[in-house]
Amino acid sequence: MPRYRLLIEYDGTSYHGWQRQRVEQPSVQQAIEQAALAFSGETVRVASAGRTDAGVHARGQTGHVDFARNWKPDTVRDALNAHLGQAGHTIAIVEVCPVADDFDARFSAIRRHYIYRIVNRRAPLALERHQAWHVARPLDADAMHDAAQALVGRHDFTTFRSIQCQAKSPVRTLERLDVIRHGELVEIHASARSFLHNQIRSFAGTLKRVGEGAWNCADVKAALEAKDRRHCGPVAPPHGLYFMQVDYD
Amino acid sequence: MPRYRLLIEYDGTSYHGWQRQRVEQPSVQQAIEQAALAFSGETVRVASAGRTDAGVHARGQTGHVDFARNWKPDTVRDALNAHLGQAGHTIAIVEVCPVADDFDARFSAIRRHYIYRIVNRRAPLALERHQAWHVARPLDADAMHDAAQALVGRHDFTTFRSIQCQAKSPVRTLERLDVIRHGELVEIHASARSFLHNQIRSFAGTLKRVGEGAWNCADVKAALEAKDRRHCGPVAPPHGLYFMQVDYD
Repeated sequence: MPRYRLLIEYDGTSYHGWQRQRVEQPSVQQAIEQAALAFSGETVRVASAGRTDAGVHARGQTGHVDFARNWKPDTVRDALNAHLGQAGHTIAIVEVCPVADDFDARFSAIRRHYIYRIVNRRAPLALERHQAWHVARPLDADAMHDAAQALVGRHDFTTFRSIQCQAKSPVRTLERLDVIRHGELVEIHASARSFLHNQIRSFAGTLKRVGEGAWNCADVKAALEAKDRRHCGPVAPPHGLYFMQVDYD
Repeated sequence: MPRYRLLIEYDGTSYHGWQRQRVEQPSVQQAIEQAALAFSGETVRVASAGRTDAGVHARGQTGHVDFARNWKPDTVRDALNAHLGQAGHTIAIVEVCPVADDFDARFSAIRRHYIYRIVNRRAPLALERHQAWHVARPLDADAMHDAAQALVGRHDFTTFRSIQCQAKSPVRTLERLDVIRHGELVEIHASARSFLHNQIRSFAGTLKRVGEGAWNCADVKAALEAKDRRHCGPVAPPHGLYFMQVDYD
């Protein structure tokens, strides 16, 4: 069966995350599978590189799907978008490419890139109220960046994963954790082969503490070394997080 | 009475524009005036630098308001934001400054800056569906920029203003009309002392024709010189337009 890779953008505000839910709660996966059924008449499963949580957005989520028929990739893209649009979904299929049978959106991924967006100003957000975390107290982005470097590398990230995280090992190799300020926008760029559940939002909440001056670099290092969830800063809200890109070989 | 200048951001999606309406239709002006009443107990009028249309956004709309009492500017900002937030408005007062009695948000303005945002890709928009104009056909932004230069300067812009425009003269001096591409985003930057009704959206719709190759620079020049509304391209939708900044002496 022909396999297709999908590049997927969504506004996560109205969804209970990527993953299909048992009860009737809207999920991104279900929306795309329903569009695929409406288009092809086939009941398909769409696998993805990452199961984003409720409220988390994506600019470059990546999925794969098999169809019985050999559709043109552009036909798949346009047909899925037409059905998603008709159903009022805030999901767009940006790109569709034919891929080999052994391509797997999840297991073939060699790197995942996320951005966590903070708008740092006194006034609340109007235009980006669902698209960034509003932090009113001034943040020192340079201090956040310096402290973030203590987290880069191969570590046991028990402190920074949800207690519901199902990964067997809490060890991950964090390749990049940069904090960059553009005016009132503070972006946290995170890259790794894979992440633990809530890892980036746990980083963001912890680094906010540093930015406000409540914690310093040594506190972040101590939290990491404690390997204890109770040492994590408060988990940042989902609507600041964007799944940006997945790299494949 | 102490006068305050307000820097105002809004998501225009849910409003019938800036201006208070006779009937019960939500407007940005009315929302801020209601917040001011709730905060101060006074019935005030908030004047602005520009009366944006329904659906148009602002990052830097500027207004002024008089209160009987001499409030601290930060108190005015925080109180207005608290009342706007409680009422569920997508409006934020970003900054409040005390100004002289003779400051007028509209008449003291010496330059207004707008950006019109186009997302130029085949796939529909998910994250920015209310925040940019989606144009599927590939646009040549360089050609758009070149043609735009025919509009810069002092001209009779009858072709590019709404037939409902109430300005006495159709002559304006356009200081800047730049078209810049960043990836799939095409931005039109427009600056002038003042604009006519629908002028920038008329420019955007006309320049889109150029970007698609249907028109060239000479066609734009001819449309301008015709001084006839029927020579304008289709007016671009409001949700791509952002009122960015107002300059004062």
